[in-house]
Amino acid sequence: MSGVVVLAGGVGGARFLRGVREAERRRENPRPITAIVNTGDDAWLAGLRITPDLDSVMYTLAGVNDETRGWGRVGESERVSGELRSYGVGWPWFTLGDLDLGTHIARTSWLREGVPLSGVVERLLERWDIGIRMLPTTDDEVETHIELEDGSLMHFQEWWTRHRAALPAKRFVSVGVESARPAPGVLEAIIDADVIMIATSNPVVSIGTILDIPFVRETLESMTVKAPVVGVSPIIAGAAVRGMADACLRTIGVETSAAAVARHYGLRSEGGLLDAWLVDTADEDDLEELAELGFITGSRPLLLSSVEESADIVDAALALVHR
Amino acid sequence: MSGVVVLAGGVGGARFLRGVREAERRRENPRPITAIVNTGDDAWLAGLRITPDLDSVMYTLAGVNDETRGWGRVGESERVSGELRSYGVGWPWFTLGDLDLGTHIARTSWLREGVPLSGVVERLLERWDIGIRMLPTTDDEVETHIELEDGSLMHFQEWWTRHRAALPAKRFVSVGVESARPAPGVLEAIIDADVIMIATSNPVVSIGTILDIPFVRETLESMTVKAPVVGVSPIIAGAAVRGMADACLRTIGVETSAAAVARHYGLRSEGGLLDAWLVDTADEDDLEELAELGFITGSRPLLLSSVEESADIVDAALALVHR
Repeated sequence: MSGVVVLAGGVGGARFLRGVREAERRRENPRPITAIVNTGDDAWLAGLRITPDLDSVMYTLAGVNDETRGWGRVGESERVSGELRSYGVGWPWFTLGDLDLGTHIARTSWLREGVPLSGVVERLLERWDIGIRMLPTTDDEVETHIELEDGSLMHFQEWWTRHRAALPAKRFVSVGVESARPAPGVLEAIIDADVIMIATSNPVVSIGTILDIPFVRETLESMTVKAPVVGVSPIIAGAAVRGMADACLRTIGVETSAAAVARHYGLRSEGGLLDAWLVDTADEDDLEELAELGFITGSRPLLLSSVEESADIVDAALALVHR
Repeated sequence: MSGVVVLAGGVGGARFLRGVREAERRRENPRPITAIVNTGDDAWLAGLRITPDLDSVMYTLAGVNDETRGWGRVGESERVSGELRSYGVGWPWFTLGDLDLGTHIARTSWLREGVPLSGVVERLLERWDIGIRMLPTTDDEVETHIELEDGSLMHFQEWWTRHRAALPAKRFVSVGVESARPAPGVLEAIIDADVIMIATSNPVVSIGTILDIPFVRETLESMTVKAPVVGVSPIIAGAAVRGMADACLRTIGVETSAAAVARHYGLRSEGGLLDAWLVDTADEDDLEELAELGFITGSRPLLLSSVEESADIVDAALALVHR
């Protein structure tokens, strides 16, 4: 069995995974952990391949992330970025830190040599001891774009980072998704999992883009996969905990509520994703509706503050399906 | 007419060009200056295209070079390099400074977009006001390699920077030279020049690699080119001023002396390169031999110390052919 398998996005997913790792460490028999990480935010920038979500998970679990800023490396500087701006190269609104650039240059160098992204991740992790197995969802370049109201496409990073998700979006498009395949190990991990967790990541542009890679959703929703699937709500008190998930939910016509996100993921026994769904104490009003629909549910405070607290949240989620 | 055309390598060539620029500034009617710069030292490193000689000229003429260290940018740091070393990417013995990396990333980004190297140089120079026209010798990738005694090939940078030219070399090989062509503007500059100068650069791996690009030597040595060709000796008192030029000269069987380098370049009227050759006062013993061979000669102290002194040296060289 492949232990605990977690679908995760970037910063929120990284904090959640830190909790999963701590929860397993506290167990008598810790299980292996596999993170299947979103690659829809990836982009070519200044000739370099950037993979923000993979990096956020890697840096956070390696303990070299910037807790204060919330993203990137601690002790970061921006000397190279200043140069790139002077040459008019890259996106002036997207900062490439010096330490972070070391990762981007190494990654791009290996990709250009023909190493697939999953192989690149393995090589990067030879340096960092993160205690879990991390897989990109796909080795193929599938980048999330936003279709704006005039019908034009904009890369997710531009919409999210430059425009703070303020431009009205008609829909999200995963460019290249049709011919994409899951990275080696992804389907195997799902099939062999003891339990599958959906992290408190953006349900649309993090978890949604993972599910949209061909064969991922199909495999997760297959009733031949024995592992229960439990999600933890990224919505607290009817609002997105991190970032601008409400703008993403609005675009796909889903209300920003704990119950609405669970309904969006769907109930496993009815062809959806989830067996169980943990909500915040502030959203206890949603529990009755969810229980009626058939979800195994529970509630507790869900703010991923300390590592200990994150592990407690993970334990509470696991308890829903381990009963 | 295209004014003063200078064949130049890296650091030594950059100092020489600073003298040429100052010498022209002091004239009543300054002429345009075109530098044809060696690209044989170029390399792919960590997925980035590095062009050390072009950068040395650019940084030095822009006044942002590190005078103390002798190469690279002033105020340089090495944060990214530390990361690359941790990932095992690049050459641990070849430092990529942070500020310098900005240039490499910009260059590589444009090259990957299909911009030729000469176009990349133009774009880089939109940032830096260097007061001269700088051309790469070729847009093609022609990299100098060393054939070692066991017959294996080693990139020039590894031989030069890692092994300090201490490994016995059988010969130099310009990999890819057969199909290379001069960059746009190179032959035109030579054909239209008022005067052509050979900088005090390495006669083998800087000037020699320029001359070896097809049509460059042929055009320079053509008697239909009207401009006189004057060189300034990189050998002072029978020793290389900079670096390890003696190891290069030894490899091609040329003695490390001012006269021997002039004979190696050859006399223009006899199918060679030079009309005139300026030597250091310490090498005045060579003058008689050179005069007998037909070279226009002169001597003066040749150490490129200050900009003023460099300009005086350039003036003295120009005076040989302007008489």
